[in-house]
Amino acid sequence: MFVLGIDPGVSRCGYGAVRQEGPQPQAVVSGVLTTPVDMPLERRLADLYREVCGLIARLAPDVVVVERVLFQANAKTAMAVGQASGLALAAAGEAGAPVVQYSPNEVKQAVTGWGGAGKSQVQRMVQALLDLPEVPSPPDRADALALALCHLASAPLMKAAAAAAEAQR
Amino acid sequence: MFVLGIDPGVSRCGYGAVRQEGPQPQAVVSGVLTTPVDMPLERRLADLYREVCGLIARLAPDVVVVERVLFQANAKTAMAVGQASGLALAAAGEAGAPVVQYSPNEVKQAVTGWGGAGKSQVQRMVQALLDLPEVPSPPDRADALALALCHLASAPLMKAAAAAAEAQR
Repeated sequence: MFVLGIDPGVSRCGYGAVRQEGPQPQAVVSGVLTTPVDMPLERRLADLYREVCGLIARLAPDVVVVERVLFQANAKTAMAVGQASGLALAAAGEAGAPVVQYSPNEVKQAVTGWGGAGKSQVQRMVQALLDLPEVPSPPDRADALALALCHLASAPLMKAAAAAAEAQR
Repeated sequence: MFVLGIDPGVSRCGYGAVRQEGPQPQAVVSGVLTTPVDMPLERRLADLYREVCGLIARLAPDVVVVERVLFQANAKTAMAVGQASGLALAAAGEAGAPVVQYSPNEVKQAVTGWGGAGKSQVQRMVQALLDLPEVPSPPDRADALALALCHLASAPLMKAAAAAAEAQR
C-alpha cells in the first residue's frame, strides 16, 4: 500500500509518502509546502491548492491521509488550518483518491503509543519506524509521515473489522 | 462596481452578485450552492471548489467579498465553514480577483445599522436596499447579498482613506 500523509497548514503544509509491501515501511518522499506570508491569503491558498493537486497527481497514492482539524487550540491558527485542510481534502477529492482522516491524538497514539506525545517524540519515533538516517524535520514533515504510518497500522484492522461485519450479515 | 458576495458553507454556500452604477444597487444573480450530505466530504469540497470557480469565471466580478470566519461558535460547524472559506478564497485567488473579507458583525452593521441584528432583519434590509419583490431566502443567500452591499457601502470610504493617506506622504 502507498499512502500520502498531509499535515495541513497555510504557512507550512507537511507531506510524507510511505510505501509498505513487506514488514518494513519505506519513506518515498516527504517535505513541506510553504507559501510566503507577505502574499495575499487568497493567492497563498490558490497556490497551496495547486501544489497539493500536483503532489497527488505525481505520486498517485492508494490513499490520502489528512489530519483531522480540531478547534480547541488557538482560534486564529485553527482558522488557517481549517482552510488548508479544506483545500487538501478538495484536492484529494478532485483526484478521486480515497481519503481517511485521523485526529492528532490518534496519530500520536499509533506511532508513539501515547496520545499526549510531544513533537520531538513523534519525530524520533517516525525516524525509528522508517529507519531514516536523520530525524525528519521540521515537525510538519514528521507529522505527515506519522499520518501515513498511522494509516498503515490501522488499515489492516479496519479491513478485518469490515470483513467481520460483512460476515455477520 | 460589480461585487460578488460569498457566504461560505459546505452544506449551503450562499452567493450574491450586486452591481452599482448609480445610487441604487441592483441584484444581478443570487442563490445557494449545495452539496449532498451523503457524499464523502472530500468530494463535496472538490465539487464546491469547482462550482465557486465556475461562478467567478462566469460573472467576472470586480471584487469578491468572502465572509471572515470566526471561531467562537459551534466548533464542528466552524470547521466546515473554515474549510469552505478556504476554498472560496482559493477560487478567487486562482481567478486573480481582488478579495475583501468582512466579519458577520461588520456586515450586519453595514446593512442594518446594528451589529447584533438577526437573520430575518438582515433578510428584510437586503430586500429593502435592493428593492427586491420578495424577501431573499434562505438566509445564506441574503447574507451573500449583504456582504456585497457591505462592500459597496465601505469601498468609497476605503478609497477616500487610502487617498488621504497617500496625500499626507
